[in-house]
Amino acid sequence: MAILHHHPLDPFSRRVRLTLAELGLSADLVEEKPGPARPELLTLNPSGTVPVLLDDDGTVVCGAYAICEYLEELYGATRSFIGQEPATRAETRRLVSWFDEKFNSEVTLPIVGEKAIGRFLPVEFGGGSPDMARVRAGIAAIRGHLHMIGELTDLRNWLAGDELSAADMAAAAHLSCIDYLGDVPWHESPRAKEWYQRIKSRPSFRGLLNDHVRGILAPAAYADLDF
Amino acid sequence: MAILHHHPLDPFSRRVRLTLAELGLSADLVEEKPGPARPELLTLNPSGTVPVLLDDDGTVVCGAYAICEYLEELYGATRSFIGQEPATRAETRRLVSWFDEKFNSEVTLPIVGEKAIGRFLPVEFGGGSPDMARVRAGIAAIRGHLHMIGELTDLRNWLAGDELSAADMAAAAHLSCIDYLGDVPWHESPRAKEWYQRIKSRPSFRGLLNDHVRGILAPAAYADLDF
Repeated sequence: MAILHHHPLDPFSRRVRLTLAELGLSADLVEEKPGPARPELLTLNPSGTVPVLLDDDGTVVCGAYAICEYLEELYGATRSFIGQEPATRAETRRLVSWFDEKFNSEVTLPIVGEKAIGRFLPVEFGGGSPDMARVRAGIAAIRGHLHMIGELTDLRNWLAGDELSAADMAAAAHLSCIDYLGDVPWHESPRAKEWYQRIKSRPSFRGLLNDHVRGILAPAAYADLDF
Repeated sequence: MAILHHHPLDPFSRRVRLTLAELGLSADLVEEKPGPARPELLTLNPSGTVPVLLDDDGTVVCGAYAICEYLEELYGATRSFIGQEPATRAETRRLVSWFDEKFNSEVTLPIVGEKAIGRFLPVEFGGGSPDMARVRAGIAAIRGHLHMIGELTDLRNWLAGDELSAADMAAAAHLSCIDYLGDVPWHESPRAKEWYQRIKSRPSFRGLLNDHVRGILAPAAYADLDF
């Protein structure tokens, strides 16, 4: 069986877990702690970051970009999560970049970095008490992204088109990390909430809803499909 | 003819320009200023960032990830820059992520962001005098990356294998931005310098070497193939 090195509050690892589950594939999960990488992880991925997929045949694939494209190339003929036409594929990847770059820097890193990662790191690796001004700026920035999700789902069934795609999985991977910390103002955006309820109800999401991060208890609404 | 919205010191725009040139394609360049995006750019790409490719048939492709995969899918049968085998494709994309994420945050953003972008922005958009401590940290971080390039080119002809790939173009796109500011310590890594000389000598690089950024004069070595 394949092995996925991951961290439960890493949105990039979560996107890979969703993609594997949607493809009906499973992988043994190996949790990597934030901070300095273990030598075993560095051997697989010299950058020391997760996710890393070690496939059955020994192929090592590092990072969500490489892993999700790898899975698309191996299994996309049966079930593509990027799309069929060049314009659809471009739109899916535009939205993946939106969440992995823009949402990540504006929301995920400020909130998850400060509240869940930094506090467990030694000071010499950037750890310490959360910078609450940075957390508040991250929470304030969520609204615009929820609004965009609402607008897209007014036009389309899912974010990039009629079918569930890598764009939905990227968006849900980031939002689910923020939701674990109870910081998504769902009540302000009923349309985005409706979209999240749909993806959260899929069997592929169950693994994420069962996650427990040491030292951080998720609010009850996190795993509740009727949040 | 296709149109590429870009910025001359944006490494993601540079990677797209190299890819287009290596494929023998050309595009009209439209330069976008750093800071708040023009309404025309926001219409094409709601994130307001470059690069954006407007293809002949009207397809809009936003971001280096989507554009380079789009070009690979349209032209990769003739000349692939990601590779043929799954393991090669995974290795190419691992290295693209290395430069676009790790090198970008450790080196490009601190140096180019402070010295070339921030100083032209209004204060309300984060502009101001360069933070020289941040610039120095960026310059110090280059060494490890040059060392890695040297090690890879000891094993292989190019970074990801025997052929020039997207990994070389990503690495050279970032390094050429730093080189425009004269901040790459090439003398410390002869092997990385030899690799850069090879890619810099390719016809696809000429456009980059002719770039002029308003208010910033590149050192003579920037465009010199015998630097």
